[in-house]
Amino acid sequence: MDASEAVEAVISAARAFMGDRLSVNRTVREQHSRGEDTTPPTLPDAVAFAETTEEVSRLLALCHQHGVAVTPFGAGTSLEGHVNPVRRGVSLDLSRMTAVLEVNEEDMDCLIEPGVTRQALNAFLRDKGMFFPVDPGSHCTIGGMCATRASGTNAVRYGTIRENVLGLEVVLADGRVIETGGRTRKASNGYDLTRLFIGSEGTLGVITKVRLRLHGIPEAVSAAVSQFPTLEAAVETVITVMQSGIPVARIELLDDDQMEACIRYSKLTGFAAAPTLFLEFHGSPAAVREQAAAVETIARDFGAASFAWATEAEERNRLWQARHDAYWAAVALKPGHRGITTDVCVPISRLAEAVVGAKATARDSGLTSCIVGHVGDGNFHCLILFPEGDPEALERAWALDRAIVAQGLALGGTCSGEHGIGLGKREFLEQEHGAEALAVMRGLKTSLDPRGILNPGKMFRN
Amino acid sequence: MDASEAVEAVISAARAFMGDRLSVNRTVREQHSRGEDTTPPTLPDAVAFAETTEEVSRLLALCHQHGVAVTPFGAGTSLEGHVNPVRRGVSLDLSRMTAVLEVNEEDMDCLIEPGVTRQALNAFLRDKGMFFPVDPGSHCTIGGMCATRASGTNAVRYGTIRENVLGLEVVLADGRVIETGGRTRKASNGYDLTRLFIGSEGTLGVITKVRLRLHGIPEAVSAAVSQFPTLEAAVETVITVMQSGIPVARIELLDDDQMEACIRYSKLTGFAAAPTLFLEFHGSPAAVREQAAAVETIARDFGAASFAWATEAEERNRLWQARHDAYWAAVALKPGHRGITTDVCVPISRLAEAVVGAKATARDSGLTSCIVGHVGDGNFHCLILFPEGDPEALERAWALDRAIVAQGLALGGTCSGEHGIGLGKREFLEQEHGAEALAVMRGLKTSLDPRGILNPGKMFRN
Repeated sequence: MDASEAVEAVISAARAFMGDRLSVNRTVREQHSRGEDTTPPTLPDAVAFAETTEEVSRLLALCHQHGVAVTPFGAGTSLEGHVNPVRRGVSLDLSRMTAVLEVNEEDMDCLIEPGVTRQALNAFLRDKGMFFPVDPGSHCTIGGMCATRASGTNAVRYGTIRENVLGLEVVLADGRVIETGGRTRKASNGYDLTRLFIGSEGTLGVITKVRLRLHGIPEAVSAAVSQFPTLEAAVETVITVMQSGIPVARIELLDDDQMEACIRYSKLTGFAAAPTLFLEFHGSPAAVREQAAAVETIARDFGAASFAWATEAEERNRLWQARHDAYWAAVALKPGHRGITTDVCVPISRLAEAVVGAKATARDSGLTSCIVGHVGDGNFHCLILFPEGDPEALERAWALDRAIVAQGLALGGTCSGEHGIGLGKREFLEQEHGAEALAVMRGLKTSLDPRGILNPGKMFRN
Repeated sequence: MDASEAVEAVISAARAFMGDRLSVNRTVREQHSRGEDTTPPTLPDAVAFAETTEEVSRLLALCHQHGVAVTPFGAGTSLEGHVNPVRRGVSLDLSRMTAVLEVNEEDMDCLIEPGVTRQALNAFLRDKGMFFPVDPGSHCTIGGMCATRASGTNAVRYGTIRENVLGLEVVLADGRVIETGGRTRKASNGYDLTRLFIGSEGTLGVITKVRLRLHGIPEAVSAAVSQFPTLEAAVETVITVMQSGIPVARIELLDDDQMEACIRYSKLTGFAAAPTLFLEFHGSPAAVREQAAAVETIARDFGAASFAWATEAEERNRLWQARHDAYWAAVALKPGHRGITTDVCVPISRLAEAVVGAKATARDSGLTSCIVGHVGDGNFHCLILFPEGDPEALERAWALDRAIVAQGLALGGTCSGEHGIGLGKREFLEQEHGAEALAVMRGLKTSLDPRGILNPGKMFRN
C-alpha cells in the first residue's frame, strides 16, 4: 500500500464512525494548514473533528495501522508551527471536546475535555469562587496548553501548566487509552507520566482529558502600572522585587515600542511610550497593600517616573486586556507586516543583560521589534516585524531571532520559556541539551510512538 | 560468562580505578543489605563508594557490559526496600559525594552532589538568608530524595522535591552522562527529563548532581500546637484551613497514640495524649499573625481544647524535632518491636474518612499503631508495630497495611504520597494506574535501561 492508499484507507474507515466530522473539504483543510506561525502552510489530507475519547482512540489505531501522520489541533494558536501537518495525513481537531466533566469545590480541582479554553473555564467557575490561573495571551485550548507546557502572566505566583495539572487521560499512538496522575496533590507512585506528556507537543500521545488544580479567587486584587526612564531601570526593579521574595501575582514588562503599540491599539490613555511594568497583587487587603507598597519603594529607588494604581476591576481588566493584546498591537504598528517572536527565558540575575542585549541587537538589525515579557520568571518575547511576502526580510527576522536566542543561551537560559519547540526552534534543542540527552528524548519517542505517526517533524530534526 | 564471573569481572575492573573504595568486606556489604524497611536483607556482591561522576559512569558502563545489577545507595533510610540489592551485584554508595558546587544567591539556586543531606545544605546556607525546604523526617541524602520524589512537612507551602529541582546530572545505564533541566524557573524545551528521573527510584539512571531552587528565610516564623477532643475535629480543622487558602507553612497531625509516644520519647511536657496539630506560619510579622489568628478561629470552631503558641526558636525547634522523631518515638513505645508504615495520600475532602477509617481498621486489628501525617497535602502515615522476629505478626501488619491502602485507593487516593514503591508497594502500582499505563512505564524502563541493570526488582513485579 503506498502513502495515498494508506490515507484513503484511514479516511474511508474513519468516516464510518465519524461521518461528516471527517472532512476533506479544502477550506477546512486550509484552516488546519498552520497556526499563528510563519511557516509555509501544509494541507492535511483530512481533518477529523473528534468528539469523544473513543473516536480519538479508533482514529489513532487506524493511523497507527496504516502509518498515517496525525497532527493534534486545538485552537490553532501555536507560534512555533506545532499544528502545521508537515507530513500531511490527518489533522486531529479537538476543539469540539469542550465539556467540563467535574468540578470538585472541596478539593479545588476539575476534570475537563481538552478543547476547553481558559476563558470558558473561568467563566464557568466564576460563581464558585475559584479560578484557573494559567493564561497565555491567546484564546488557546487547555489541551494545547498542556501539550506546549504553557504559562503566561500569572506563572510567577501560581506556576505554569506543569504545576497546575494533576492528571491526564492520554490516547497513545496505537489507540490505547491511559490515565496518568490522580486527584491527590502529590504522589510517589511510579514514573511521572503526567509531566512526560506535558510539553511533549503532541509527539507522544493525544491528551483527551485534563484534571486541573484550581485556586481561590483572592480576597483582594489590585493592579499598578509603573513607568521608567530606561529599560534597565524597569528590569532591575523586577530583579530586586523577585529577590526580595515579594509574592507578586503578575509582573510584566513592556518596552517603549510595545507601549507605543498598546497605547495606539488599545487606546491606553494616560501613559507614555516608555519602559513600563504592569503589576498585580493578590491576597488579603492588608497583604496586597503591604506587597504593593514594598514594590513601589523598590521602583522609586530605581527612578520610576510613575506608579499608578488601578483598584477598580474595570480599569484592571482594561490594562490586562491591553497586555494580552500586545502581540496584535505590535503587528498593527506596521500594516502589511507579520511577526515572529522569540521566547528566551534566563535566570533572573541575567535578565537585564538579556533584555537590554536583545533590544540593542534588534535595533542594530534595522527591523521593528517590541519587547514584552513575563519578567518575574525571566521570560521575555521580542516580537520581530517583517513585511509579509518578503522572504529576504523574513530571513533577516530569523537571523535576529537566532542571535537573541544565542545571547540567551550564553546567559544560562533556554530558547523557549513557554511557546515550545515545534518547527521553529528545533535547531536549538540539541544545542541546549546535548546529543546524549536528545538521544534519550528520541528513545522515549520511539518507545511511545514506534511508527512515528504522532506530530512527525516536530521537536526533532530528522 | 556466568553470573559470578560477570561480577568478578566488574569488581576487578572497577578496583583498578576505585581501589579500596570498591569493597567486598562483609560488614560493609551488610550495611548495604537493606534500608530502614523490614524486607529480608540481601548482601550485595560489592559496595562501590563513588566520589565522582566519572567513577559512576565507568562503573555503570562496566555493569552494563557484564549485565551486573546496580543498586544506588544514599543514606540507607528508605522505608520501602529501595536500597535492598535483591539481585545482588553492586551497591553504589553515593554518600561521599557531598560537595556544594555552586550557590547563586541572586537566583536563589544551588548545585550540589547527591550525597548532601538537607541538614548539611541548610547549615551551609544559613548565613546566606536562604533555605531548602523539603524535609523528610530522616537524615536522608538529597539524591535519594530526588529518586523517591520525597516531600515532608513543608510541602504544603513550598512543594515537594518535584517542584524544587531545576535540573539534574544523570548517569545512564550504559555510562553516558546527561544534564536535564537548567537554571531557568520554567522552560518549554523538549521532554521533561528532570521530572522523569525524579521518582524513578534508581531504575532509570543514577543522579550525580542536583540543581535546587532555594527559598528566602521568612522574615517571621511562628509555630502553634492545637489539641482536639477527637481525631475528626483535628482533621476537619485541616480540611477547612486548606479550603480557606490560608498559606500555612506546615500543618501536621499526630493522633493520640503518636502524641503519647512523642511525650515519652521527646519529653514533650505540657501536652495531653490527644489528637494534635503542629502548625507553622511563615511571612511578614503581620501576615504570620493574620494566618495564625485565622487558623485559631477555625480550630476553636471545631472544638479545639487548646491553641498554644511557640514563637521562640528554641521551643519551635523542640516541637519540630519531636515531630521528626515521631517514627522512632513510636517504635520505642514497644521494646523489641519494629514498624512498617503506610503512606496513603487522598484528596483533602476525603481526609477525615481516610484517617478515621485507618485508625478504626488499625484498632480492630489488635496491633499497636500511631498516625502522623502531612495532612495539608492529604498524606498520612499509619505506623504499625509488630514484635521483631515474629513472621505471623509481620504478616498481620502487612494485611493491615493493605487494608488501609485499599481504603485510600477507594477514596481516590494513592498508595504512596512520598515514600515510593520500592519492593513494598509494587502490588499496588498496577491497581492504581492500570495495565496500559504500567506497560508505558515498563517501556520507558526498557528504553533507558535495556539490560535491566538499574535497581532491578523495584517498582515493577516481574
